Amino acid sequence: MSLLRTLHRAVPSPSRTCTNCLRKYSAASPWKAKHEKKQVIFSGIQPTGVPHLGNYLGALRQWVKLQDEASPDTTLLFAIVDLHAITIKQDRYALARRRKEMLASLLALGLNPKRCIIFTQSSVKQHSELMWILSCGASMGYLGRMTQWKSKLSLPSNASPLDPADNKDALKLGLFSYPVLQAADILLYNTTHVPVGEDQAQHLEFTRELAVGFNHLHSSSRPLLTVPQTLLSPAKRVMSLTEPTKKMSKSDAQQKSRILITDSREEIHAKLKTALTDSVEGVSYDRERRPGVSNLVDLMFHFDHGGAASPEELARGLRGLSMRALKERVAHVVDVGIRDTRGRYEELMGGDERALIEYAEDGARRAEVIAEGTMKRVRDAMGIGW
Amino acid sequence: MSLLRTLHRAVPSPSRTCTNCLRKYSAASPWKAKHEKKQVIFSGIQPTGVPHLGNYLGALRQWVKLQDEASPDTTLLFAIVDLHAITIKQDRYALARRRKEMLASLLALGLNPKRCIIFTQSSVKQHSELMWILSCGASMGYLGRMTQWKSKLSLPSNASPLDPADNKDALKLGLFSYPVLQAADILLYNTTHVPVGEDQAQHLEFTRELAVGFNHLHSSSRPLLTVPQTLLSPAKRVMSLTEPTKKMSKSDAQQKSRILITDSREEIHAKLKTALTDSVEGVSYDRERRPGVSNLVDLMFHFDHGGAASPEELARGLRGLSMRALKERVAHVVDVGIRDTRGRYEELMGGDERALIEYAEDGARRAEVIAEGTMKRVRDAMGIGW
Repeated sequence: MSLLRTLHRAVPSPSRTCTNCLRKYSAASPWKAKHEKKQVIFSGIQPTGVPHLGNYLGALRQWVKLQDEASPDTTLLFAIVDLHAITIKQDRYALARRRKEMLASLLALGLNPKRCIIFTQSSVKQHSELMWILSCGASMGYLGRMTQWKSKLSLPSNASPLDPADNKDALKLGLFSYPVLQAADILLYNTTHVPVGEDQAQHLEFTRELAVGFNHLHSSSRPLLTVPQTLLSPAKRVMSLTEPTKKMSKSDAQQKSRILITDSREEIHAKLKTALTDSVEGVSYDRERRPGVSNLVDLMFHFDHGGAASPEELARGLRGLSMRALKERVAHVVDVGIRDTRGRYEELMGGDERALIEYAEDGARRAEVIAEGTMKRVRDAMGIGW
Repeated sequence: MSLLRTLHRAVPSPSRTCTNCLRKYSAASPWKAKHEKKQVIFSGIQPTGVPHLGNYLGALRQWVKLQDEASPDTTLLFAIVDLHAITIKQDRYALARRRKEMLASLLALGLNPKRCIIFTQSSVKQHSELMWILSCGASMGYLGRMTQWKSKLSLPSNASPLDPADNKDALKLGLFSYPVLQAADILLYNTTHVPVGEDQAQHLEFTRELAVGFNHLHSSSRPLLTVPQTLLSPAKRVMSLTEPTKKMSKSDAQQKSRILITDSREEIHAKLKTALTDSVEGVSYDRERRPGVSNLVDLMFHFDHGGAASPEELARGLRGLSMRALKERVAHVVDVGIRDTRGRYEELMGGDERALIEYAEDGARRAEVIAEGTMKRVRDAMGIGW
């Protein structure tokens, strides 16, 4: 089933509900035109540098698919969320480099800057402006019950924001307020659909509640903020090659635990060659008992399922293969799958830096036009516009 | 002693300390030129509408004095802090009106928009942008120990931000984070001096610590943020006319408890006529036992001390007066003191609204030039500039 069909199913159909105010209305009512908006898809990614296969299969490939399948009047915005990145201590030079690498990667993966609005969050000041305004309606208690800051600081779920560990001042306001900035990111663009992974579903719900609460308090007639819907993507967990019970991760010290979308054919083969599997003979699919082998089968399935309907079915077709042969097959399909991306990435990063930056600046300008439109309405509704 | 002299005394003299990095240095050192900056004075006021005598004598009169006595190379910025106002629920129409009234009042009081930069905070987006960046370094624990949010919600000093009262969701993130936005307001303009009342001293200290911490983390050579000094103004508490043990306040339901700087001669006389005093005969100064009479003497002293060195001395000169005569004398000096202001205010509010707004827009443009300069340095130092 195409992603776009998933998308269309998420949109109000026979019994309609306004995505803004959540009120039900009949399809024949005069509300329809006013209440059914064109789709706006927004998503963000942290500037973590060149994405690995986990980032690619988990989110970025879906972005490209959404772009390719979206109807012409759908607006697509993809932000590199550097204001989120700084909630954790960063090295300025590393962050600046990773921002650029992420930008080049998004373009190399096939996001078309003419079709989509691709930009860095910090270039559009309205993000922090709306964040502040929303924070005036965001309850401290609700935020304290959210889990993200706890997991980022590796704290138990009952940790208190004021005394999160032995070190009383460990938790910073930025990390604690993160979900409000995320809400601003989304609400700024009248977003109707947000493709997210399951781990972000809690934040999306928070965004929806903030928007509904804001509309309730500040809208006189038409809702000010569009209440977005979640486009949950089927979880595609790509595991570490060296520790296949853990997710593939940028922060893993072992370089060979992950494949970057810019890795050369040799690097891909070398990394897969040393991938941890097990000593059972032949290929079979069992995430629980054979995590390493299953992860390889998954990778193969995601890149080239060869007609199989599921990784299990694919594994059955491969059952006679040795580990070595499996790894070579996987390396091959991965290489074929990202070959073009790698080429485009090298072109983008090898060329004039200015050209790359212009893509981001152009994206920021287009994003700002929409953002400023929203903020003008918001400021007026708050009594702080001139 | 003039305010400017107070100001000069606050500036590093013989044993010099850099206001940016707080390091000591000798006056003869080559650091001097680099480290001794031109003075920048910043202060803000909430858009509470037309100021009353408490606002005027407590802060605004000092602003005008600072303007009139500042050396030509001193920059003065005065902001109407509407982004702070919305941390408390506001009616949009009332807020919009009060913003305009405050702007007209500042101009009417004698702040010269050619000499000072007068603007509304929400018109300069860099305020919330820097607020977000600073919040990534602001400790939740420290903020939780601050008192402002507790007093605004009328909570005891041991209240917890997550469960401030019976209503778990009473405290909003905006009110809790208020001191960080205030720090951004100040630090955005490389402010060297902040005239504040004693009740704001805690927030100023917080601002200084945020700036020092930020410089420590992010400055490579020159400090990024100027660490401001406090210009404590001698407390001038103006008390309510109807309940002279409480401060004169905008939120008092009794109109006649306060005199606005735009009140007519008749209103001033009428309000003072009904001012609460006591039944002791004659005038004497004793804030404890005769709060009403002392408040009237104070008012008179602030407007026209007639050569007396203190309110006590002034009271001795007036000791033979009846209450009625005292009130008439006070009403007269107040009327004379604010007559010109009233006239200018009526002119400003009676004229074309557009002209008034242009003052604010011009101020915002000039403020933004300085703010953007700071933000450019800050973004670069964080690794989020292009």
